[in-house]
Amino acid sequence: MALTNTRIVRIEWGDCDPAGIIFYPRYFEIFDNATAALFERAIGMTKFHYLKAYEFAGFPLVDSRAKFLKPTRFGDDVTVESSVDFGSSSFVVQHRILLNGELCAQCTEKRVWVTRDASGRIRSQPVPAPVREKFI
Amino acid sequence: MALTNTRIVRIEWGDCDPAGIIFYPRYFEIFDNATAALFERAIGMTKFHYLKAYEFAGFPLVDSRAKFLKPTRFGDDVTVESSVDFGSSSFVVQHRILLNGELCAQCTEKRVWVTRDASGRIRSQPVPAPVREKFI
Amino acid sequence: MALTNTRIVRIEWGDCDPAGIIFYPRYFEIFDNATAALFERAIGMTKFHYLKAYEFAGFPLVDSRAKFLKPTRFGDDVTVESSVDFGSSSFVVQHRILLNGELCAQCTEKRVWVTRDASGRIRSQPVPAPVREKFI
Amino acid sequence: MALTNTRIVRIEWGDCDPAGIIFYPRYFEIFDNATAALFERAIGMTKFHYLKAYEFAGFPLVDSRAKFLKPTRFGDDVTVESSVDFGSSSFVVQHRILLNGELCAQCTEKRVWVTRDASGRIRSQPVPAPVREKFI
Repeated sequence: MALTNTRIVRIEWGDCDPAGIIFYPRYFEIFDNATAALFERAIGMTKFHYLKAYEFAGFPLVDSRAKFLKPTRFGDDVTVESSVDFGSSSFVVQHRILLNGELCAQCTEKRVWVTRDASGRIRSQPVPAPVREKFI
Repeated sequence: MALTNTRIVRIEWGDCDPAGIIFYPRYFEIFDNATAALFERAIGMTKFHYLKAYEFAGFPLVDSRAKFLKPTRFGDDVTVESSVDFGSSSFVVQHRILLNGELCAQCTEKRVWVTRDASGRIRSQPVPAPVREKFI
Repeated sequence: MALTNTRIVRIEWGDCDPAGIIFYPRYFEIFDNATAALFERAIGMTKFHYLKAYEFAGFPLVDSRAKFLKPTRFGDDVTVESSVDFGSSSFVVQHRILLNGELCAQCTEKRVWVTRDASGRIRSQPVPAPVREKFI
Repeated sequence: MALTNTRIVRIEWGDCDPAGIIFYPRYFEIFDNATAALFERAIGMTKFHYLKAYEFAGFPLVDSRAKFLKPTRFGDDVTVESSVDFGSSSFVVQHRILLNGELCAQCTEKRVWVTRDASGRIRSQPVPAPVREKFI
């Protein structure tokens, strides 16, 4: 079974808008942080270190699909569950945000693993096998 | 034909991440701002005023689908094109972000028009006809 | 002695700019979150609840003074230490951000406790004694 | 007389907090953007290009002092006025934010011009004379 990373995130006052609920772009910050944390958990290093260890430039998003089912608000401690499926040329990260066991938001992120060539240009390549194996 | 709103947005240094390109949650801030601007253009008031004029609490997102085709970076002045289609219980806003005529990102946002009932709870309702007519 | 609240905050990839270090406005989000957390610790409720319990509208900033001594970057788990001094018409919150025991940033925030009058206007007033006593 | 750059900035819905007014860390994003714009105006290139043209790594903040006099809210188009004074080892940028001619916020930023040495470490140095002369 694939590794799932679970973390608790506090929704802060400054994450919320004049309607008193989370401003939805803040969810995407939570998702991006959760993707970094999932890899940190699997690899056993922070993103700062695993970028160096595997000589890559990041895993930018190419596609995202999100659903927002119930609003959350400042003071809520939400649970974020994240897992990944590796494809041949990209990978998919699934995030679920729950409050008191109820699903509030979910997101499917399609990402690519990129390196820089000699000219500094970004190139997508498969996730290296030694990285993929950390998630098993 | 439906009204399309077009605006130029500068990608700022602080919108970009250590890879030197836009941190993708910032695109969702650009999309949210563009939705507010599209309604401002059609209605002829800022969001602060049209929330009061039409006695509603906002138009929260229920679903979004975004594609990121080419990265943008600080100093880029991107063009944001936005348009809306009204359904019976929700509406869909389409955004396209272009740089020098090339499509860099696009997003389809499904949103609902909400009001607050006497207890303060948010309820979804159809977009009022006088608002929809402003977009024709 | 006044209560000091200490928390660990992860600097995230999206908090950093193309120079690879924290984009300094993110420090002010950390400071604002830390002020809310200091009051949460003293009062024993989240900001959502203590705004209601003490019938106030917030504690906006009127003045801030910050020093940035050493940059931090994504992956750093910084320690944030916060304490407050109550004056007659305002209060001062001090924050220190440390990494491995070294001071990286500090901020002095002058804030006021505000309530809304019948017309909805914000008015500053002294911090209520029952709140101040929670910090002793 | 020193060059002053003036720009209009829209306060957006997502810049505001549940009190309905600007979340103050957003002012620091406006200040940082305004510093970049002041240099862009003087030098005649965007920050992306002037970082390369003058081979430096940025102008990080070492100290800031801000006053918040009147709140602003979404829909406000504020005027941001920015100017700079160059010292021997650092420089000071002054920002003023006005709404309808009334001062709402002001900030004094002390910044240093930094380059990277061969080891990648950041070093502060005086602002080059050819840059300083652009502001006269």
